[in-house]
Amino acid sequence: MSFDTSSLTYNMAGLIPCIAQDASSGEVLMMAWMNAEAVAMTLKTGNVTYWSRSRQAFWVKGESSGHSQQLVDLRVDCDQDCLLATVRQTGPACHTNRRSCFYTSVRDGVEVELMQPMT
Amino acid sequence: MSFDTSSLTYNMAGLIPCIAQDASSGEVLMMAWMNAEAVAMTLKTGNVTYWSRSRQAFWVKGESSGHSQQLVDLRVDCDQDCLLATVRQTGPACHTNRRSCFYTSVRDGVEVELMQPMT
Repeated sequence: MSFDTSSLTYNMAGLIPCIAQDASSGEVLMMAWMNAEAVAMTLKTGNVTYWSRSRQAFWVKGESSGHSQQLVDLRVDCDQDCLLATVRQTGPACHTNRRSCFYTSVRDGVEVELMQPMT
Repeated sequence: MSFDTSSLTYNMAGLIPCIAQDASSGEVLMMAWMNAEAVAMTLKTGNVTYWSRSRQAFWVKGESSGHSQQLVDLRVDCDQDCLLATVRQTGPACHTNRRSCFYTSVRDGVEVELMQPMT
């Protein structure tokens, strides 16, 4: 079946969450949002492109930081309201310079930092 | 630092997305939503508990299907608006009986089914 970005379910702001996962290690790197045009741009260019809710603008991952995400595979979930992008990540995915945004674990009621910023 | 569910950022409906990842294989299984009480219940019981937006009720994963998710580790992202639960998944995570909800890939503009329902 041919894919149409309008077949996805977007929230009231016209956005759909996209999980980025390292295609090699399987590590979950981050979650951010796309609108229909960002999904189309990601598929067309192979450079994962989000919609920045704070800037209200397209966010070509790595465009300013160099920490780009090259798309390996884009997947849609069973009810078409979440995306999973497997990617080749250059450098850290997180703006804190950590490999993944999910660097804090909750263990026995306490926050534990799992990774340090990359040098 | 001790963890407080009120430190998380919820959307206007009081919900935060939670990605479930198989703790052993690294496979991303699904994404669903939690409210603050569901986060607390998940941490307290070790049984991953979402908030069902369609039923407007707590959704203890596997309670009716038997396809439960036992929490291994709960992680918070850098801006506290997304969770990652690594889990031990019993049976399929998806209501379609597939291991993961992300069983559809978009390749060359066409939807490709990556996995079959479990038998």
